[in-house]
Amino acid sequence: MNRREFLTLSAAVTGMALMPKRLLAEEMKIANKGRFPETLKPEMSGDVKEYRLYVDIFKQEIVPGFAFHTLAFNDQVPGPEIRVNEGDKVRVFFKNKTQLNHTIHWHGLYVPYRMDGVPYVTQMPVMPGQEFVYEFTAEPYGTHFYHCHWGTVLHLQAGMYGSLIVEADDDPVRKKYPYTREYTLLYSAHDVNFIRNELNVMLTRMKERTYLMKSGRFDKKRFNLFDSLEEMKEAMDEGYMPPYVNNMRAPSGLPEPNWFTVNGKSYPETPNVYIKSGENIRIRLINAGGESHSLHLHGHDFWLVCDDGLPIPQPTQMNTLHLAPGKTHDIIVEGKNRGIWTFHDHDTRRVTNNGLYPGGNLMVLVYEDLPMEERAVGMMEGMKMDASKMSMLPKIALDE
Amino acid sequence: MNRREFLTLSAAVTGMALMPKRLLAEEMKIANKGRFPETLKPEMSGDVKEYRLYVDIFKQEIVPGFAFHTLAFNDQVPGPEIRVNEGDKVRVFFKNKTQLNHTIHWHGLYVPYRMDGVPYVTQMPVMPGQEFVYEFTAEPYGTHFYHCHWGTVLHLQAGMYGSLIVEADDDPVRKKYPYTREYTLLYSAHDVNFIRNELNVMLTRMKERTYLMKSGRFDKKRFNLFDSLEEMKEAMDEGYMPPYVNNMRAPSGLPEPNWFTVNGKSYPETPNVYIKSGENIRIRLINAGGESHSLHLHGHDFWLVCDDGLPIPQPTQMNTLHLAPGKTHDIIVEGKNRGIWTFHDHDTRRVTNNGLYPGGNLMVLVYEDLPMEERAVGMMEGMKMDASKMSMLPKIALDE
Amino acid sequence: MNRREFLTLSAAVTGMALMPKRLLAEEMKIANKGRFPETLKPEMSGDVKEYRLYVDIFKQEIVPGFAFHTLAFNDQVPGPEIRVNEGDKVRVFFKNKTQLNHTIHWHGLYVPYRMDGVPYVTQMPVMPGQEFVYEFTAEPYGTHFYHCHWGTVLHLQAGMYGSLIVEADDDPVRKKYPYTREYTLLYSAHDVNFIRNELNVMLTRMKERTYLMKSGRFDKKRFNLFDSLEEMKEAMDEGYMPPYVNNMRAPSGLPEPNWFTVNGKSYPETPNVYIKSGENIRIRLINAGGESHSLHLHGHDFWLVCDDGLPIPQPTQMNTLHLAPGKTHDIIVEGKNRGIWTFHDHDTRRVTNNGLYPGGNLMVLVYEDLPMEERAVGMMEGMKMDASKMSMLPKIALDE
Repeated sequence: MNRREFLTLSAAVTGMALMPKRLLAEEMKIANKGRFPETLKPEMSGDVKEYRLYVDIFKQEIVPGFAFHTLAFNDQVPGPEIRVNEGDKVRVFFKNKTQLNHTIHWHGLYVPYRMDGVPYVTQMPVMPGQEFVYEFTAEPYGTHFYHCHWGTVLHLQAGMYGSLIVEADDDPVRKKYPYTREYTLLYSAHDVNFIRNELNVMLTRMKERTYLMKSGRFDKKRFNLFDSLEEMKEAMDEGYMPPYVNNMRAPSGLPEPNWFTVNGKSYPETPNVYIKSGENIRIRLINAGGESHSLHLHGHDFWLVCDDGLPIPQPTQMNTLHLAPGKTHDIIVEGKNRGIWTFHDHDTRRVTNNGLYPGGNLMVLVYEDLPMEERAVGMMEGMKMDASKMSMLPKIALDE
Repeated sequence: MNRREFLTLSAAVTGMALMPKRLLAEEMKIANKGRFPETLKPEMSGDVKEYRLYVDIFKQEIVPGFAFHTLAFNDQVPGPEIRVNEGDKVRVFFKNKTQLNHTIHWHGLYVPYRMDGVPYVTQMPVMPGQEFVYEFTAEPYGTHFYHCHWGTVLHLQAGMYGSLIVEADDDPVRKKYPYTREYTLLYSAHDVNFIRNELNVMLTRMKERTYLMKSGRFDKKRFNLFDSLEEMKEAMDEGYMPPYVNNMRAPSGLPEPNWFTVNGKSYPETPNVYIKSGENIRIRLINAGGESHSLHLHGHDFWLVCDDGLPIPQPTQMNTLHLAPGKTHDIIVEGKNRGIWTFHDHDTRRVTNNGLYPGGNLMVLVYEDLPMEERAVGMMEGMKMDASKMSMLPKIALDE
Repeated sequence: MNRREFLTLSAAVTGMALMPKRLLAEEMKIANKGRFPETLKPEMSGDVKEYRLYVDIFKQEIVPGFAFHTLAFNDQVPGPEIRVNEGDKVRVFFKNKTQLNHTIHWHGLYVPYRMDGVPYVTQMPVMPGQEFVYEFTAEPYGTHFYHCHWGTVLHLQAGMYGSLIVEADDDPVRKKYPYTREYTLLYSAHDVNFIRNELNVMLTRMKERTYLMKSGRFDKKRFNLFDSLEEMKEAMDEGYMPPYVNNMRAPSGLPEPNWFTVNGKSYPETPNVYIKSGENIRIRLINAGGESHSLHLHGHDFWLVCDDGLPIPQPTQMNTLHLAPGKTHDIIVEGKNRGIWTFHDHDTRRVTNNGLYPGGNLMVLVYEDLPMEERAVGMMEGMKMDASKMSMLPKIALDE
């Protein structure tokens, strides 16, 4: 049975995940809390908020039965949420527990140059076993994120990203749209085959390199390691070929994501967003992946209130938001249309799990005040059919 | 002769399609009317506007000689246009004439939850032979669309989409930019190989499933059909493997569109947009496909006036519009630069037909008041060359 | 050793390219001037500014050691910058020195219809050896570009694009954000395998066609050359099959870019942008390629001031800009955070060279007033580690 044969079929299974009764059960509401990033508690050192982050290899289960080894902050994908106030002094101790190099880039923050986390530009990479201390003042206000900036194609998509929220006492968004709850959603896209292969090759290679260096047989040209661009050009004059010269690259040379996550999980394990009639909620959307997402909310137009954290002077409304890689957007949803409403990428390839629909970043906005009678069997009411005949695919049976 | 050999060559053929004389001929203007969606006529039932939609398998010819079986509303791709006034009561009888499940989602409308068309969330799927009745009040104002929300990766790209326009007596766009004509353009992107394979597999599979169910040998695990996520997890404890676990997916597992259409047709069969000097026209752009389009109009900057149907308080001008999946945008073009102007995706891969340029979503804005002397031979005037020597590729001949 | 083995390794080499000492050296600043398009000098003919452009095959070296044959204006990729004042009369003599057809489209300008450069629509293609004269008045104000509009999938990505800047005496951007320097950046994405194959096939094919025409054996059907769409349809009635009908297209049928350039070069040869504390600079971003770029600047929010050249009435700030194909955007960066800051696509696949990270459109914003003590060894200061032990990967060595 090939993968195509499951396409419609799998819809039937996992569709059940969104039945109202299940979504509104107390157990689900409790479980759902675990689907948002945990806020990391700081320790105060004088007037400085101190945080501890480490990176290690971590086994991430995206949906029931599908897991892979990845790189994660504090054994979580996404990493824990750092939530500070504008102007706070922040210190982050970052420990590298892996055999690979890493750094942390504070995406969207005005950190001092040396704290920006770009290897060889603002700092040396944080090598295996080392610790680096990042220090900065939290600004500007808004929804930001942090992520590894070493070997970013792999490290970022593998899971090294987390939200960083800078709050303000006089929050301009809360002022304009008084809201009672907020949610952080980090989007990503993963080519799991790529991640697996790259991690394996890197770890093997690091060991070989170390062995050669210890035995004095390390060859710069073989490893493409030079002290400067000039040195590389000299080597080229002597016949060295940089690896990018080879143009026999397979089409699979660049990652082609086959898993699409929100807060590290794919549907049906994606987080639910709860709301009540008359309530405003704020959703912080962060695109930590390499694909654009075109996020459509059913039954509502929402307000787009922040762009990369910065409040938009004159917010506008829409039902579909284009979230490009590296962008953050805050939206306000007004509880005006009671029900259960899906929120998902309208590039429907991203609502699949390894090619199977439904999956990916499909999630739901759930009204908690949905009356009992609309939660269970009620869903059949609008359908003009004889319920007594409702077996599976009755019409097909009749046709044969 | 392989496909590459045709690349420049095909340009020559199909380029002829846009010669001014042809575009401005009366027969073309009449034929062109058939290139926009037909407005569906309602029947009044009291104060309710009633519409009838059905879905059936339909053979769609995208360009001369290239057709495939697809899923369509009322035997049209796109489906017929539904055009109502804000506040209208609407009832849509939807009949499923196929062997597959379907629903209708009213994209951008504030419909009641049960009318939203998401299977297993807001309603049971509309199964083969069944009918479902959708009822809602038409709001908000603007350019919206409807589409199937079952197995969306296939059903939406296959052709199950149509425009839904909500008009207002006191139209804010018309007030600001008095316009005399308007055009609806629905964009999509199709992986025709994917569509063919999926349709075949699904239909075969549905039959097998039905047979097994009738003979009492239906196996939930084999078909990945469970009543709840919990039941699936229990099956997994017993050794069941969900299909998405297999990571041997080929790169072709997700659709890679090779045909790009406007109103269901590719160039040279795409619709023409006519304008006159001094006239304003309104174009309603709907992205019903899964790819972003970056639409460039030659010789003009246009006004972007609506976002997902909602009027933009302070419209801005541009010549290239990014239309993400699921978005609608309304633009106003002012007739200020007489001529014939192409309007197309600037990702030039989308102005191809199955890899051959030109094709795809290439279309033209045509000034009807183009004077006679500019229509035919005039096009050579600006060229500094000896017309008597103008044969095909004279220079190459001389070179050999 | 396969390509994957180099992924982290190559980071080490080329990372060196951005060491502060190197970036701030005088030789680098001089070399960097050659990384921006050269402004083409006009000759005055009465009140008309006359420019001369030609297209020829050109060998473009994107990074050290990687070159390919491409199509270029005046032997430059990008072509030279044309910089005029609003209202200037412009005449461009365009000479075709290749064996292929070409035209020039003036993207974003209100040129007369016959000067728009769309083959068979506004003019005949400029055939091998021929010259065409474009004449227009420069309007509107802003950042625009020109590019070939023949066989665009190949010709545009191959290198036939250049910036066209229309200045205004009373520059609205300069008024609002007095700036002292400005930079033009043209982005593109190239499938070099595609370019090589297409160029080879086309040149071979052109020769064959010419031979057949000369010997009177040219067959319209074989070459897919008809005088009208109607003629093609008649041929189809007789059994002719247009090439796009074949659906056996390989997934590689459309270009899949593996090189990502800024001003025709990939990292580490991309241009540097220099700034001083307290200075405003203007950056003109032009997307001449077929991919969207999501450009993230570290350590700053910048002002988005123009859209397709047109000043935005109420500019907003962001740190990541989505630059869709065919768009131009002007941004203002305020020199408020001294350091060296990367500026790159956050779809990290585009910061690779032929699959190897880092590369592609990675570039840097460099503060010229970075004090001496921060330029060289200073980069180690923030790192809490024993410098005496700092050899390559010490921890791995200890582990084994």
